[in-house]
Amino acid sequence: MNEFALIAKYFRPLATSPGAFALEDDAAAITVPAGDELIITADAIIEGTHFLSQDPIASVAKKLLRVNLSDLAAKGARPLGYLLACLWRRGTAEAAIAEFARGLGEDQAHYGLALLGGDTTASDGPTAFSLTALGLAAKGEMIRRSGARPGDAVFLTGTLGDAGLGLRVLQGETIAGDKMHHGFLTQRFRLPEPRLAFMLAAREHIHSAIDVSDGLMADAGHIAETSGARLVIEVQPLPVSAAAAAWLAAGGERAVLATAGDDYEVCFTAPSTKAPALRAAADASHTRLTEVGHVEAGNGAVLVGEDGREIPLARAGYRHF
Amino acid sequence: MNEFALIAKYFRPLATSPGAFALEDDAAAITVPAGDELIITADAIIEGTHFLSQDPIASVAKKLLRVNLSDLAAKGARPLGYLLACLWRRGTAEAAIAEFARGLGEDQAHYGLALLGGDTTASDGPTAFSLTALGLAAKGEMIRRSGARPGDAVFLTGTLGDAGLGLRVLQGETIAGDKMHHGFLTQRFRLPEPRLAFMLAAREHIHSAIDVSDGLMADAGHIAETSGARLVIEVQPLPVSAAAAAWLAAGGERAVLATAGDDYEVCFTAPSTKAPALRAAADASHTRLTEVGHVEAGNGAVLVGEDGREIPLARAGYRHF
Repeated sequence: MNEFALIAKYFRPLATSPGAFALEDDAAAITVPAGDELIITADAIIEGTHFLSQDPIASVAKKLLRVNLSDLAAKGARPLGYLLACLWRRGTAEAAIAEFARGLGEDQAHYGLALLGGDTTASDGPTAFSLTALGLAAKGEMIRRSGARPGDAVFLTGTLGDAGLGLRVLQGETIAGDKMHHGFLTQRFRLPEPRLAFMLAAREHIHSAIDVSDGLMADAGHIAETSGARLVIEVQPLPVSAAAAAWLAAGGERAVLATAGDDYEVCFTAPSTKAPALRAAADASHTRLTEVGHVEAGNGAVLVGEDGREIPLARAGYRHF
Repeated sequence: MNEFALIAKYFRPLATSPGAFALEDDAAAITVPAGDELIITADAIIEGTHFLSQDPIASVAKKLLRVNLSDLAAKGARPLGYLLACLWRRGTAEAAIAEFARGLGEDQAHYGLALLGGDTTASDGPTAFSLTALGLAAKGEMIRRSGARPGDAVFLTGTLGDAGLGLRVLQGETIAGDKMHHGFLTQRFRLPEPRLAFMLAAREHIHSAIDVSDGLMADAGHIAETSGARLVIEVQPLPVSAAAAAWLAAGGERAVLATAGDDYEVCFTAPSTKAPALRAAADASHTRLTEVGHVEAGNGAVLVGEDGREIPLARAGYRHF
């Protein structure tokens, strides 16, 4: 099957917006409502680096879409559509491409956006995908990383470090001495949950936000750096799942969870006075929300123990180079 | 150097739009002027498939940007900005990344757009890039592929097949018996010229357009298919450079030039009555313009000889699968 037939069969059905022109034009036309601006972000994932060859390809498709939606969520943007470049390893079975498109289709229906265009090609290298996600926000209202102010509280959605433990499971490690948590942890690695509903409900109260992809401490560091402030994260309240709690009980270190990648939770800062409104938004969107620290004058992000002392970290998060 | 330092040093200087937030936010905010819509397209290129390992990396950067600008040109859209995902082969020298950014910087200044965001990562595979280009067009005015009508004339900018011959040169072939044309041909392969100035001047007269990336006959076929019409391309008037003419004189076949990839010229259809206005736009933008055929009822794109008979083609253009 050539690329045109593949696109027509598997990707055209995903291009449901009129402005995608059924992918006939290699370009989409997008109208941005008056009062809104377009929020746009791009992320790439590569076989062997961001996903594993044995990961089900439908869940790879979903993760690809979700990591970008997680970026939009952190900005307080409503998803609109996406463009997708597929760089398939030459010889990829058509069935894998069909599965990939099926996964995308399920998720785009779930999150309310549609394929707008892209490119399909093949190489001798590992399969890779690059996705550009488009969202909408009221003009000037995109939540920045740079808005943290001394006195803000630091909040985190969901639980921390599950994806990192899930990756270890997929790499053959047994977590917490038994396998009862393995399904949950690998699911957290493979299918992050972009916190769109919560962020859209809570956005007006938020000063700064970032989605946690490289590890909480690394990403809190980005807020600190761009805001010119210091984020103090407390190790004790960091929210953990039952699975991560079992791993901690078996000797795991809490600080490791704060530097593991792929959480795709949102770390944000807001005035403490907004905590009740934030809790209401969290409840309405069935999102766990935890206050994990505060912002003060200074710079950098630090993890502190119950004694208030800084916990030294081997590394703040994942780096590609 | 880690990815954050690389981005800060080499890519932040390219993010000159206020809405790019100096790449601090992993997302850009774009205001679309009232009356306009956003035109968006994405293309990926892979080392070994779309460019060669020995190609100067600064010219690879330029080609990457230009192939996307060529798509915008074919749509009649004004360039606005771009997002870029870089998938570097692990171990790529920092000097190569610096050169790549230098090439991008030169071209974005030349074409009047700026970097808006993206992603930088590394893998064990070949280096690859995916670029999403954004442009603006008046609402509903994007030039489609589907607008060709029986009676339209078919036009082509520039000259045909140079890039295909340039690729052969880079693969070690001697073209036309001597090497005097090699520099020109490889330049045409490495640095396509997106026909933005011409298309923006001529757009109001054009019924349908496509940029020729897969070979003229393949891309004329896309116009035919989406328009529900037949494009008849005449072999005799097909515009060739002095280099391609020398290759033809040495026994090369003209039909081969009509199926070679990477031209990045624009093939479009317009009423014959608009020829004078189109010539004026071509003159004003210093663009060679040739009438190469016509549209009639039917389907498909065919190449015909001076005797009016269809010339059989081994393949219409390049395919990745």
